[in-house]
Parts: sequence; structure tokens; C-alpha cells
Amino acid sequence: MKNRRNWLVALSMVVVGFVAGLLTARQRPRGHSRGAPPTVTGTRTLTMVTEWPEQLPGIGASATRLARRVAAASDGNLVIEVYPVGTKLEALASFDAVSEGQQAQLMHAAPLYWTSKAPAFGFFGATPFGMTSPELKAWIDHGGGQELWDELSARFNLKPFSAGSSGVQMGGWFNREINSAEDLKGLRMRIVGLGGETWTRAGGKAVALSGGEIFQALQRGDVDGAEWFGPWNDLSMGFYKVARYYYYPGFHEPGSSAELSFNLDTWQSLPPAHQEIIRSCIEAEASFVSAEYDARNAEALARLQRDHGVELNPFPRDAYRALALAAEEVLADLARTDSLSRKIHRNYIEFRAQAMGWTEVSEQAFASQRRLALGF
Amino acid sequence: MKNRRNWLVALSMVVVGFVAGLLTARQRPRGHSRGAPPTVTGTRTLTMVTEWPEQLPGIGASATRLARRVAAASDGNLVIEVYPVGTKLEALASFDAVSEGQQAQLMHAAPLYWTSKAPAFGFFGATPFGMTSPELKAWIDHGGGQELWDELSARFNLKPFSAGSSGVQMGGWFNREINSAEDLKGLRMRIVGLGGETWTRAGGKAVALSGGEIFQALQRGDVDGAEWFGPWNDLSMGFYKVARYYYYPGFHEPGSSAELSFNLDTWQSLPPAHQEIIRSCIEAEASFVSAEYDARNAEALARLQRDHGVELNPFPRDAYRALALAAEEVLADLARTDSLSRKIHRNYIEFRAQAMGWTEVSEQAFASQRRLALGF
Repeated sequence: MKNRRNWLVALSMVVVGFVAGLLTARQRPRGHSRGAPPTVTGTRTLTMVTEWPEQLPGIGASATRLARRVAAASDGNLVIEVYPVGTKLEALASFDAVSEGQQAQLMHAAPLYWTSKAPAFGFFGATPFGMTSPELKAWIDHGGGQELWDELSARFNLKPFSAGSSGVQMGGWFNREINSAEDLKGLRMRIVGLGGETWTRAGGKAVALSGGEIFQALQRGDVDGAEWFGPWNDLSMGFYKVARYYYYPGFHEPGSSAELSFNLDTWQSLPPAHQEIIRSCIEAEASFVSAEYDARNAEALARLQRDHGVELNPFPRDAYRALALAAEEVLADLARTDSLSRKIHRNYIEFRAQAMGWTEVSEQAFASQRRLALGF
Repeated sequence: MKNRRNWLVALSMVVVGFVAGLLTARQRPRGHSRGAPPTVTGTRTLTMVTEWPEQLPGIGASATRLARRVAAASDGNLVIEVYPVGTKLEALASFDAVSEGQQAQLMHAAPLYWTSKAPAFGFFGATPFGMTSPELKAWIDHGGGQELWDELSARFNLKPFSAGSSGVQMGGWFNREINSAEDLKGLRMRIVGLGGETWTRAGGKAVALSGGEIFQALQRGDVDGAEWFGPWNDLSMGFYKVARYYYYPGFHEPGSSAELSFNLDTWQSLPPAHQEIIRSCIEAEASFVSAEYDARNAEALARLQRDHGVELNPFPRDAYRALALAAEEVLADLARTDSLSRKIHRNYIEFRAQAMGWTEVSEQAFASQRRLALGF
């Protein structure tokens, strides 16, 4: 348990570094100033803090767009002022602030960031060898996931919503080939979160680096490999210039999801119409930004292969097997925290087993047959 | 061309039959009566006709839920009265009615139903060997699909939105094994839409049956096989009692999507706040009902295998190949209709090629490695 706690502290530091590395300094907080000023009486203004730089493509832009949707749908009666990370709060401070409700009433963040508050938050974000984003959405909406997430979050005076997924992440950039599970031993990889713990348990060495440090570390050989996001974000970081092999698929974050969480008292104080506007706008925006990752990742992958000659490799089968065994141990450890964690773990694992059966005869089988049948 | 038109007429008849077969007679139209009565002045009431029986699980319930979301979000200012098929209009009459705008201002239907109006509508619904629902959503939202759909629909005075997907459909129930492409020859299968045309071009015989007729036709041997939806809907129809083999994956509808389309004048007359409410509620509900199909299909598939001993088989590889060649011809024929159809076809095919590349290294590769690595 001590090791796990140490690891969680290390994770927190990595995430702080990650966000700090991405962040472009901003002097003034940016509110919802670009919309029309509210003209109707009874306007309510809420403060949203995010864990993203505003200019971060995908999820950063999505937080701003969500505020615009809510303002438009409420005819200016519900104004959400958006404060990207660093403009009002430092990185990873949003959870406590929104739980308390004074400085901010809602946050745009990721469940994965809060495993130091309660390890079971990880199940609602990204889980090594866990559910893909459509499976996770099915679990949350129709398999009891939302109720469990509500129960866990209520302990911290929060009301959570799923806010979009960046999809299956790539396995990372490497400067050496990985030909067997044996090759994982001692391999220094920049990888964070539950994936990092899994990597270490499987014999590798997880290295803590912020986003801004990865390029140079790969170039200098300080690490043997690094994962970041998917092709869209990886292309813009230029990793193809300093690493030869691009591995797929990532085992660590099969459906990495963001969250929009409210201070629970604030949420309960909203009139039903505003609750419905917010609920529908979050769900719509989540669907829209997930589709954006799908579209842009597809485009960027094609460019990496066509314009930059990037070579794609799958990890070898016995490496996946070693990583999967390690991941199951990591999850089982999380489940031991308390009875609610046990309940969430059991529910998640049962739903995953059933979801896998369906995914395999539908999306997976179709994608496979389509390629063979179309013959290109 | 003549053959294709004949086939489209036949398709229309099948769809009418399909809806009629499902329909439970209703004496009174069911409006949005269960919500609180509107209490705010300036209430606007719109009439929505659907192509679904209200009690149809999944998409039928989704249409009703959408109206409730809009009423709640607008605080009762925007009321959508829902008329399931047969209560105000007969099956397949919604397109003309909404295009004209007098009897109804919006419809909940499926793009596949309108290929007799313009064949290219098929691309926005379900296309044999086409895009899966996440790929289709990425194309519509971020690949130019919505703009093309808007352009096509505007010719009929309509404004379309994607309204949810039932996912990859199963390949169907059969009473004989299919061991090669040769076995497709003369095989009588209940299959509709572009899939039916593809089946026939590949040597099979597509049979037109409404939903209510399938069970008996399978039992009597009037058909050798039949497709319906996926495990959720197929289980409730009891097909496992009269057919031995359940084939996967379906080639014909990899991401079968519904639509919510407005009369274009009505849409343009709505104030921006109501447009945003409607846009976000449709997108949210689409995401919610798609997740419902994923969850319920997974559950029903497990029950079919565990409780009813259903045997799952993939179609043989050369059968997929024969069907894929036929499907490419069917799509190329659609593209020949006019210049807009050509443009849509080209855009769709290009996006599909790119999306396939990403799906294969993400969702498909991950699902495959996960099963092997978890070892159950």
C-alpha cells in the first residue's frame, strides 16, 4: 500500500508537470466575454476552472465551447466563466476548490487526476486493458456506472458528468524495437497514471516527464520511449523527428475520458430547466469532441505515415500478456481501498466482460472483415 | 437504372411492411401530455411525426425522450408533440409532410428510408461495408458530412440532424451453414435496403418481409435466413427458436443511424436559444440511445449464448469478398445519379479510407489484443 501511495504522489507531480509543460502563460483570466452580454434578468454566473490550457486542441477548446453552448441555450441566463489552468488556480487544484464551492463551482478535468483522492475515480477515466470509450459510455449511461460515480463523488460534495473521450491512445514512440516481454525489462518509458504503474509492475521503468520535456528526453536518449496522446497531438509535438517506431495499440488508456463536475450544492440549487440544459449540453459536447478526436487522429495518422515515413508496430503478444497481468493486479489493488471501491471494481469488470463479447462480434469483427473484403 | 428504381420501390414497400408489422394500433395520438403544462407565455408547439411505434425499444423511446428533454430545457416554452407512425401519418409519409411543413414540422426517421427521394441519403444512414457509427459521426461532425447532408436536404426544404445509431448489425439468422461464397447463390434471405440490393447482386435472393412476418417465414422454411437488428431486438423476436445459426458481423449496416429532420423554414424561424437547445438535445439523446444499444446488445448476446445455446458463426471470407464487390457497385450506381451524389460518394469513400486506418490501429487492434492478453 505504501508503494502505491508513493506512486500516487509521483503521479500527481507528473500531472502537474504535464499541465505546466503545456501551459502558455496567460495574464488575464478569460471569461465568457466573447458571447453577447446577458440581457435577461435573473442571470446566474458560475465559475468553471479547467485543467487544460485554453489553446489545447480537442479537450481544451471543448471546455470553452461548452460554456458557449450553455449561454446560447439559456438565452444568456446561465453564464459560465471559463478559467483555464493557471489563470485562477494552479494545476490539480480544481478538485478541492469545486468540492468547497467558493472559488469555483465546476471543473473540466479528468477522473484519472483524482486517484489520490480516491483510487476508484480511475475507473471512470481510463483503465489499462479496460473499456473503450463506447463501452465506457454504455457502462456509465446504462450499466450502473453513473450511479456509482455519483456515490463516490458525493463523498467529496461533487456531481460528475462524462465530458468526452480522446479514444484509444497509441502505445508510444520508441527508439528500439520491442520483440518480446523480455524486452520490457528496464525499458525507460515516459508513461503516467495507472498505465505507468502497470508498466513498472511488468518490469519496465516508468519515467515522470511533463509534456514539454518529452521531445528532448527522447532526442537525448534519457528515455527509450514515451506515450503522449494519439496521432493528432503527437504529430504536433514532432515526436516522429526523434523516435523511429510508433507502437500500437496503447494498453494503458483505451478510452481516456474527461469529466465536467459540479459542486453538489450548486448543482442541486439549479432550476430543472438549467439542469437539463447543462446535462444535454455536456452530453452533446462530449459526443462532438470525441468525434473530433476520431476525425483528427485518422487524418494525422495518414500524414505521419505518408509524409514522415513513420513505421507502425504492434507490441508483441507476450508483452501484452505481461502487461495485462500487471494491470489486473493494479486494478485489484485499487479495489481493496474500501467497500465502495470493491463494488465499483466488480461492476466494472462484469460489464467489461459482457461488453467485450459484443465488441468482438460487432465493431472488431466488422473492421477486420471490411479491410479484407475491400482488399486495400 | 430501371432495375435500381424497381428495387427502390420494393424497398419502400418492405419498409412500410416492416413498420406496419411492428405497429401496435393506437387509438389516440400521444402528445407531450405527461410533462407539466407550459406556464410561460410565448410557448411554441411543434408537431413531430416518427417512423417508429412508440413502444419500439431503443429508437422509438428515444424520440419521446427527446421531446421531454426539449420541453424541460426550454422550461416548457418549446413543446414537441410526438406522433408515432400510424397515429397521424401512415408509414413513410413523414418526409413529404415535413418537407411541406403543414401537418408536421419535424420527423424522427432514418435516412435509409429516403433513397427513393434521392439515393445519396443512404450515405448518412447505413452503407454496406461503410463506416461504423463512430466513423460516421466523425465524418458528419468533422469531415464535411453535415454540410453535404444539409445541401442534399435543402433541396427538399429540410434541415437534418443525426439522431443515434443501433451500431453494427448482426449478419442474420440462418437454418443452413454458409461455407463459401458459392453457398450465397440462390440463398433466400430477408434483408432490406442497400444490403438487400448487395445480397442480390452477389447471387442471393433478397426477400421482402415485414418484421412481423419473419418468425413464421423462418419456421416454415420460406426463407433460408433473415436479418433484423442486433441481439437486443432479435432476442425479443424469439428468432433463436426457429433458426440455428447466428451470423456475424453484418456487412449491410455497420452503423445504422436515425435522423431528426426539421422543415427548413421552421428551423430558420426558431430563435437562436431554441436552435441551440434543439441541437444539443438531439446530439445528447443520440449519444445516449447509441450507448443504450451497445449496453443492451451486449447483455442480450450473452443471454442468447448462455440461456439459449445460440451458435455464432462468421460468414466465410470469400463470401464477404463477393458481398464487398457487390456493395462497391451498388454505391457507385448511387453516385451516378447527379453531381451532388458524386460529390457525396467521393467524400464518403475518402473519409472511410482514412477512418479505417485509424480504427484498425485503435479500436480494432485494442479489442483484439485485450482478449488475447486477458486470456478468457
